Amino acid sequence: MAHPVTMPLFIKMRENDNVAVAIADIKAGTEVMSGVYSVEVIPQAHKIALCDIPAQGEVIRYGVVIGYATDSINKGRWINEHMLTMPEAPDPNNMTFATNIVSELPSPPTFIWEGYKNSCGYAGTKNILGINTTVQCVTGVLNVAVARMKAELLSKYPNVDDIVPINHAYGCGVAIDAPEAKVPIRSLKNLSKHPNFGGQMMLVGLGCEKFTIEMFLDAADNTPENVIILQDYKGFDAMIEALMKMAERKLKILNQRKRETLPLSDLLVGLQCGGSDAFSGITANPAVGYAADMLVKGGATVLFSEVTEVRDGVYLLGERCVNEDVGIKLAREMKWYDNYLKLGGVDRSANTTPGNKKGGLANIAEKAMGSIVKSGSSPIVEVLSPGEVPAKKGLIYAATPASDFVCGFCQLASGIGVQVFTTGVGTPYGLVTVPVIKVCSRSEMKNQWPDLIDVNAGTIATGEASISEVGMQIFEEIIAIVSGKKQCYADQHKIYNDLCIFNPAPIT
Amino acid sequence: MAHPVTMPLFIKMRENDNVAVAIADIKAGTEVMSGVYSVEVIPQAHKIALCDIPAQGEVIRYGVVIGYATDSINKGRWINEHMLTMPEAPDPNNMTFATNIVSELPSPPTFIWEGYKNSCGYAGTKNILGINTTVQCVTGVLNVAVARMKAELLSKYPNVDDIVPINHAYGCGVAIDAPEAKVPIRSLKNLSKHPNFGGQMMLVGLGCEKFTIEMFLDAADNTPENVIILQDYKGFDAMIEALMKMAERKLKILNQRKRETLPLSDLLVGLQCGGSDAFSGITANPAVGYAADMLVKGGATVLFSEVTEVRDGVYLLGERCVNEDVGIKLAREMKWYDNYLKLGGVDRSANTTPGNKKGGLANIAEKAMGSIVKSGSSPIVEVLSPGEVPAKKGLIYAATPASDFVCGFCQLASGIGVQVFTTGVGTPYGLVTVPVIKVCSRSEMKNQWPDLIDVNAGTIATGEASISEVGMQIFEEIIAIVSGKKQCYADQHKIYNDLCIFNPAPIT
Repeated sequence: MAHPVTMPLFIKMRENDNVAVAIADIKAGTEVMSGVYSVEVIPQAHKIALCDIPAQGEVIRYGVVIGYATDSINKGRWINEHMLTMPEAPDPNNMTFATNIVSELPSPPTFIWEGYKNSCGYAGTKNILGINTTVQCVTGVLNVAVARMKAELLSKYPNVDDIVPINHAYGCGVAIDAPEAKVPIRSLKNLSKHPNFGGQMMLVGLGCEKFTIEMFLDAADNTPENVIILQDYKGFDAMIEALMKMAERKLKILNQRKRETLPLSDLLVGLQCGGSDAFSGITANPAVGYAADMLVKGGATVLFSEVTEVRDGVYLLGERCVNEDVGIKLAREMKWYDNYLKLGGVDRSANTTPGNKKGGLANIAEKAMGSIVKSGSSPIVEVLSPGEVPAKKGLIYAATPASDFVCGFCQLASGIGVQVFTTGVGTPYGLVTVPVIKVCSRSEMKNQWPDLIDVNAGTIATGEASISEVGMQIFEEIIAIVSGKKQCYADQHKIYNDLCIFNPAPIT
Repeated sequence: MAHPVTMPLFIKMRENDNVAVAIADIKAGTEVMSGVYSVEVIPQAHKIALCDIPAQGEVIRYGVVIGYATDSINKGRWINEHMLTMPEAPDPNNMTFATNIVSELPSPPTFIWEGYKNSCGYAGTKNILGINTTVQCVTGVLNVAVARMKAELLSKYPNVDDIVPINHAYGCGVAIDAPEAKVPIRSLKNLSKHPNFGGQMMLVGLGCEKFTIEMFLDAADNTPENVIILQDYKGFDAMIEALMKMAERKLKILNQRKRETLPLSDLLVGLQCGGSDAFSGITANPAVGYAADMLVKGGATVLFSEVTEVRDGVYLLGERCVNEDVGIKLAREMKWYDNYLKLGGVDRSANTTPGNKKGGLANIAEKAMGSIVKSGSSPIVEVLSPGEVPAKKGLIYAATPASDFVCGFCQLASGIGVQVFTTGVGTPYGLVTVPVIKVCSRSEMKNQWPDLIDVNAGTIATGEASISEVGMQIFEEIIAIVSGKKQCYADQHKIYNDLCIFNPAPIT
């Protein structure tokens, strides 16, 4: 692949790095930096050795050790995932807290947006009738009813964006008293109060399930106005009729909601990455980190997540925790996940995908350093267990799985109004309840999926744009989309993934 | 509740039982059997003590100990779940095999049915284009395409019943190399070859997922005729176009399938129960067991499942295993599940639901004894791990979770062409890929859900019909439905649950 000589060929992140990453495929014999020649083809996004590295020697990117050379590696060679052994995971019991509290953050271009105000909590970014379920058993009946609601009712209520059944694989046939059952239970309870549902509770149960109506709802919400138990109805038609009637009552109320000008402090933004490559940590994630810093500066709350993708750099997060309480919860979540993986016979290295490796990421240590970058530089004011709702405003670490669809579910349960999703090799992921804005790490990805990628951060690698310029573009995209002035591509095409609940407890 | 004196008030299952089950609500002071008077109200389906039971004394139903009296229980008292302590689970290492091999089975009224023959394996009961997926990431795009296929293509191919996307929560963000990852992997591979899909392979992948196309497909199936990788396409419209084109090619082939007269040996039937009550083991499950015996006698293969619901009576299954190899696999599956539950901090007692207990089932020991009955009396020729495909013909134990929707998924992966589902308190569960025939345990349930329950076995309790009469009715219902001559209620209303995969390995 030809490359103009005026553009950089490689990106070296920190002064003491002994590797750099190829911006495009590089031929053998190319002088990539002064005195460093590629001795073989270096594929785009992959690493080249900038000096001779002895066997067991440190391989350094982002200024940190991402692995040790299994055998000696000569200067100019391509370093692939088979040539490194992983470093040990840092000890979560041995972190320092609040030693890197940054107070200078970039200012946002605006401090307001247009959302649906709620009587408490964050504001909505869409206006949705969410129909909650205690158990998968009711899904089949509910889906028939929702299809009829969309055909017969939705157009009568033009201020309502959609009707969304909250179908999930929980509620019965599960160990409801298991220690970890609290995770799916609190997630579903919190999701039922999502800001986009406007405080309208509608819950469908079966009548004999383990996850009872009483466990699901606060006593005040447990009324015939809000709850339908299918076993109470005489046959299928009566169930459908009851569901239609309740939905129409709720739609009438939701239809009165109007967007209004709100401060950024009413906005909760989730960050996630999926299908990462070695550019993710250079382009898309730093740009999102810049936007995140502007959001926090403006008063918004920002969640970032994915335990296995911060695990190897968790000490960097510890230093950013505002106090010891926050840091201790961070450590606890890391240890919980270490143990969860160990019970299943694996460790954090189970995270990386074939796509990550093809994309130049040697292992989870390298992936994590790139992933953390999307959190920007703000202090971490709170740490959430999966599916918990924030109590603080600012940058928050929500300790969810890294699986795109499971993290997405957990962040929804935490109440995000929008998700910013960075990708290297590309995923068409979307959520029906909130917009998902996709930011890609390479211009080739934007060219391949022009109508799926909302923002191209690949221009950072080619020198066409700076991190702050793309960060500003992401910020402005967020504001336009959460204000209803623009639709992300996932919403334009109605590309919506299923809700994939996180249930670390057994099935019975 | 008034009750005609000519009908029995209670059912006692075995001579040495010291409890009986109320056929309807019984007032205090009723002589329920000679010399036994109810000393309090006994709710329908609940147990009455037929003699004084001392503290720590055995409580016997189905001729086996279902628990021990916590305190002494006087003759005539209602025995509820709070009055019993559970027996120890039988030791799977200490079972006898092949000591109860029954050869006399009831003859079926027919040995033929009308199905879609396949070149190998069982025949189809529906004619479906199944669209497989490697990973949840592709679900959003696929669902858009399937909606278009149904609107624009399906009516052109009148011999095809439906187009079904196999959406699931697996494929990435999972520990693909974990020891237990084999369960979801083999389940999805086997499901892709379901008899109702007629040997037409269509698989949609993303391109960077952990569960690769190469892992999913046999090499012979991995061709551009069968596989679409979304990352290979230039944008959303190109993806949809490719999906539509491949679907139409497959629909043309499937449209040539015709039902033909086949022997029962081409039929694979799954059995399951959900929302059980104390009648389930008296009416619905024995009647299904009778039908199962006729099916086996006729040459069909019958799967029953649900580990926690056989665990307390597993020695009864051991005695029915045709040889030690089968028995040893049975024991291994029990031990695997014991350990799986233990890792999650629970045991088999986590199975029972509030509905079970309201329905008179004191604990999992009592529930299991009633659940096993639906397997009839045939010898057990094979034991399957979750999602495995049968190699033998006859009665097979498939060691799946008891969760209705997870068991349903696993039995589908094993290739069932129909599921017979017994229920006490009622669930509207259905599967899109195969018919689900619902059999209820009480006439009140049929009266409540006349258009959801296909067969009422409650007539057995009231003396209106015998077990063999209802068993015959179930057999005839199965044959009519698998032959396409009748639709079960779930198919009439299109009540379809989501596919809920069994993944005992961690999320990453």
